[in-house]
Amino acid sequence: MSQTPFPAVAAAIRKTLEGQGFTRLVGAEVVSVDPGVVVMGLDRRAEVLQQNGLFHGGVIAYLVDNATTAAAATMIDRTSRSVITAEYKLNLLAPSKGDRLTCRAEVVKPGRSLTVVDAKVTCRTDGEEKLVAVALATIANLDLKTA
Amino acid sequence: MSQTPFPAVAAAIRKTLEGQGFTRLVGAEVVSVDPGVVVMGLDRRAEVLQQNGLFHGGVIAYLVDNATTAAAATMIDRTSRSVITAEYKLNLLAPSKGDRLTCRAEVVKPGRSLTVVDAKVTCRTDGEEKLVAVALATIANLDLKTA
Amino acid sequence: MSQTPFPAVAAAIRKTLEGQGFTRLVGAEVVSVDPGVVVMGLDRRAEVLQQNGLFHGGVIAYLVDNATTAAAATMIDRTSRSVITAEYKLNLLAPSKGDRLTCRAEVVKPGRSLTVVDAKVTCRTDGEEKLVAVALATIANLDLKTA
Amino acid sequence: MSQTPFPAVAAAIRKTLEGQGFTRLVGAEVVSVDPGVVVMGLDRRAEVLQQNGLFHGGVIAYLVDNATTAAAATMIDRTSRSVITAEYKLNLLAPSKGDRLTCRAEVVKPGRSLTVVDAKVTCRTDGEEKLVAVALATIANLDLKTA
Repeated sequence: MSQTPFPAVAAAIRKTLEGQGFTRLVGAEVVSVDPGVVVMGLDRRAEVLQQNGLFHGGVIAYLVDNATTAAAATMIDRTSRSVITAEYKLNLLAPSKGDRLTCRAEVVKPGRSLTVVDAKVTCRTDGEEKLVAVALATIANLDLKTA
Repeated sequence: MSQTPFPAVAAAIRKTLEGQGFTRLVGAEVVSVDPGVVVMGLDRRAEVLQQNGLFHGGVIAYLVDNATTAAAATMIDRTSRSVITAEYKLNLLAPSKGDRLTCRAEVVKPGRSLTVVDAKVTCRTDGEEKLVAVALATIANLDLKTA
Repeated sequence: MSQTPFPAVAAAIRKTLEGQGFTRLVGAEVVSVDPGVVVMGLDRRAEVLQQNGLFHGGVIAYLVDNATTAAAATMIDRTSRSVITAEYKLNLLAPSKGDRLTCRAEVVKPGRSLTVVDAKVTCRTDGEEKLVAVALATIANLDLKTA
Repeated sequence: MSQTPFPAVAAAIRKTLEGQGFTRLVGAEVVSVDPGVVVMGLDRRAEVLQQNGLFHGGVIAYLVDNATTAAAATMIDRTSRSVITAEYKLNLLAPSKGDRLTCRAEVVKPGRSLTVVDAKVTCRTDGEEKLVAVALATIANLDLKTA
């Protein structure tokens, strides 16, 4: 765990995510950053849909990629280490018909070199949060000197 | 395999992909559609990068999602069936530093209800194609009447 | 959900698992079968270990394969349908040093053609259950007439 | 790559695999060990089957687990490092009805801390090798001093 006070860690993670060109293009927001848990969200608009008016699978994958990596980033000492996505698996469970996507990523097992994170993606549909995807990710921790 | 002549199938798949709101936002192109193989590509620009100037992992996932599903779509009779991504796993192998991403998806095993597809993503870097990601996807075939 | 009373469904699933040649070879037991949840276990002995005296990864995979498929089997009408493993992803989190493995598989999302199931594998070590693996599986439902 | 001559590396990997209690129980053989490629095989017998007389999915997973890890092990300097399976994803493509299973694991991308390996499993059926499973694995390299 970082030696830096957590609010400063959270602010740095949020700033990194929100500063990505692709995050601005997609229009996603960082909802919350807590130790081991990061939540991101995205409102419906035509530019993030596929041909049937559902949120595009690639948008769901973007949220999973970013939120899982950020959740792992909350567990390291950022003065000496950084994180990088090694791999993830994503299951799409139901059509994303609603007006807002939310991805909640939570660390399952932090490790010295690898952190395993799961993610649940819900779509707010008629006022209810419906589970639309689940994912399981492996995030690698790198020493900054060797990264 | 579809009863429709393949060029018409390919044109329909290309039109579907290029008509997606998210495809237009990302700026990706369908390079080729052949039986069992679909290639998509994307040029570098600031809006598709992450904080270190690499192509964003979510962009790679978008290409994998679309190209694998489209490759599976080349194997069905589109008059009676449609395809939907069930799941995929994506391994990121190397930083995507170059000027163009290309994703080539190829059917490993077509099936009545499920088609398995693999994908390789390369990044053109200093004129050479470098392998940056591999993926393995399961695409579900649905009967149109029940979809 | 099956029209057959659940205790009869559970007994049939248990009998199928325990009758497998490989289950008898491995020496695993069905701990419990409930709607959407199946638990299997295995005691330590030299024949199920790898070179460092840990439970072999293949034994963990065997438990995941069987327990996830059986959990999906609790959700179908067995008079007209059967289940088959389409794919799974397994993350090994920690060495399995203890004296007993337990795999708990739970349905995340039942579906008409596909059921998604997650699994947690723990190893009882010095009297405590330690999480050693997590998995995410996709199980296909087949019509018996077409299987 | 190891400083040790490759034949000695291959012999050490073969000895490790064949000495595992679970390998002896399953009855698998190491067919070949080459730089970046390991092949394992297993003949049909009642003890490795499931209820319908097919090779059990857990047997396929065992071969994938061992062969992918061993393929990664051919790429490291064994005097200072060791390998451990981080995760894999396995797609079952067709029933394994034949008389012998063969798993061929090949390194896709060796890395300093992670090696990505794919695997193809075939089942010899009526004299022909039929593809029955594909897998994609991430193997972690550990420094022996810190393992």
